[in-house]
Amino acid sequence: MAKIRVAINGYGNLGRGVETAVSQTDDLETVAVFTRRDPVTIRTGGAPAYSLGDIENFRGKIDVVVNCGGSATDLSEQTPAVAGAFNVVDSFDNHAHIPEHFEKVDAAARAAGTLALVSSGWDPGFFSLQRAFSQAFLPNGSTYTFWGPGLSQGHSDAVRRISGVARAVQYTLPVEENLARVLAGDNSEFSAAQMHRRQVFAVLDAAADPAAVREEICSMPDYFAPYETEVNFISAEEFERNHRGMPHGGHVVRTGETSAETKQVAHFELMLDSNPEFTGSVLAASARATARLAAEGMSGAITLFDVPVAKLLPDSAEDIRRNLL
Amino acid sequence: MAKIRVAINGYGNLGRGVETAVSQTDDLETVAVFTRRDPVTIRTGGAPAYSLGDIENFRGKIDVVVNCGGSATDLSEQTPAVAGAFNVVDSFDNHAHIPEHFEKVDAAARAAGTLALVSSGWDPGFFSLQRAFSQAFLPNGSTYTFWGPGLSQGHSDAVRRISGVARAVQYTLPVEENLARVLAGDNSEFSAAQMHRRQVFAVLDAAADPAAVREEICSMPDYFAPYETEVNFISAEEFERNHRGMPHGGHVVRTGETSAETKQVAHFELMLDSNPEFTGSVLAASARATARLAAEGMSGAITLFDVPVAKLLPDSAEDIRRNLL
Repeated sequence: MAKIRVAINGYGNLGRGVETAVSQTDDLETVAVFTRRDPVTIRTGGAPAYSLGDIENFRGKIDVVVNCGGSATDLSEQTPAVAGAFNVVDSFDNHAHIPEHFEKVDAAARAAGTLALVSSGWDPGFFSLQRAFSQAFLPNGSTYTFWGPGLSQGHSDAVRRISGVARAVQYTLPVEENLARVLAGDNSEFSAAQMHRRQVFAVLDAAADPAAVREEICSMPDYFAPYETEVNFISAEEFERNHRGMPHGGHVVRTGETSAETKQVAHFELMLDSNPEFTGSVLAASARATARLAAEGMSGAITLFDVPVAKLLPDSAEDIRRNLL
Repeated sequence: MAKIRVAINGYGNLGRGVETAVSQTDDLETVAVFTRRDPVTIRTGGAPAYSLGDIENFRGKIDVVVNCGGSATDLSEQTPAVAGAFNVVDSFDNHAHIPEHFEKVDAAARAAGTLALVSSGWDPGFFSLQRAFSQAFLPNGSTYTFWGPGLSQGHSDAVRRISGVARAVQYTLPVEENLARVLAGDNSEFSAAQMHRRQVFAVLDAAADPAAVREEICSMPDYFAPYETEVNFISAEEFERNHRGMPHGGHVVRTGETSAETKQVAHFELMLDSNPEFTGSVLAASARATARLAAEGMSGAITLFDVPVAKLLPDSAEDIRRNLL
């Protein structure tokens, strides 16, 4: 059977993650990488690189484009544009703007007769599926999402902008005590700061004042001030050795009652050594499902909520039932 | 909007669980309970009870029948029969015979133009979804299912058949040490006995010999002999106080690598105070999805693998995206 022809649009960490994931399948192949940079400067894992401006020439040669733009800002422009000519998958993750993004992509995809699966990945994505299934199966209850331990790009950037900071990473950590309460069936409401704490590892310039930098981090509104924050100053060597990865993960917990005093708890946990590689892997499976559903005649915008899991797996329906049911 | 009319076929613990779950929704209603017993002996939570023999008279008055037969043996007969006239949901859970059951139900449902969702519940069901999604998103890896802590009806029955045993329950427990190894990324193979241990609480007749009963339990082939087994003899009072519930649960773990040495772990855990009530709640959501998909023209046999999660939830697509994505 012909492989599903995948194109990767944007070749940063996520694009590389998608390429690696596709290379581990038997039914997908990466036929092109598109970039806004000069394509000759791009070293892919094997697929040819092209200028994004040339993508229109690939009509009929690509089954699905995976948009790997580095930010929700990129995707809010690129996904509607690409959906005008190709089936497309993205990982748009600005939760507050998902409805608006969905509508814009839906209009473009409907007009073009293409299919666009938006906001895939792990959150939104696999975590969203957990929230949806557990609410469907336990309608009378509360859902909690705890993130971490995981690297937050936005918080790391905020620390790096402080004068005197040479390098920095910020890890978001779940407040284990409140996670344990929720898992034990406590369905109180918790604020973001009751669910998460923040841990910073920074390398300072020689002239920097550690106390002043610490104070500036901990008092930063929204980012750090409301949270319990731990700041560690380390050497460049230690930073290089221990803080170059992009781990992430977290917990989705649904607790509820099926009748008075009958407690039921569903708990999902992800522990990811590499956020972009796992997200890439979810996007690769999403590309498979999108190509298949488009081939069945589906068009417009969808999310993972609209995708039966059988469409995400390469196996036959019989094998899936036999091996996984 | 008219409610989805649900009928419950079989009124034991599971049937009551479905009725309770349906009563907690705004879009489903239980319009009939069918039983093989004399219907006047059945005290439902409100719905009228009828003899199963009369079910044919309800064509056009029921949107979906939930088969709650007490064993896979009941369901292997009842689900194909009911699918000949109605959309139907069951929780057929004899894993080895699922392919055969699926084929039989599929033939009956296709011939009648009905839709049959088989093998729903939590395992098979919610656990199966976890195995499928995590394999789709992490194709290069291993999946582990640990059951428990939970009451095993089959093992409890086996103990109760021993002479001298007045009452007994058996709990299946995960071997925590090996669960921890798997969660830490160890992808060794484990036997069933390396993954589970067994815990028995029994009330003895006055004349029984505890040592002999213990020996008979622990040496029972298949059921107990391969497992680490703990036997506790307790009073009737303690049994009544602590061992009348039907808790269950367990863990599905998928561990794998997205590239060399990059470990990713997905862990799902259920902790259920009441197995039949949670299963009933999953079946109620499954009934909703089945009625909707049938109304869209789908027929034949399906499993949860074929159902987008949006169909299981009562909310609008917009609300689901806004609140759960």
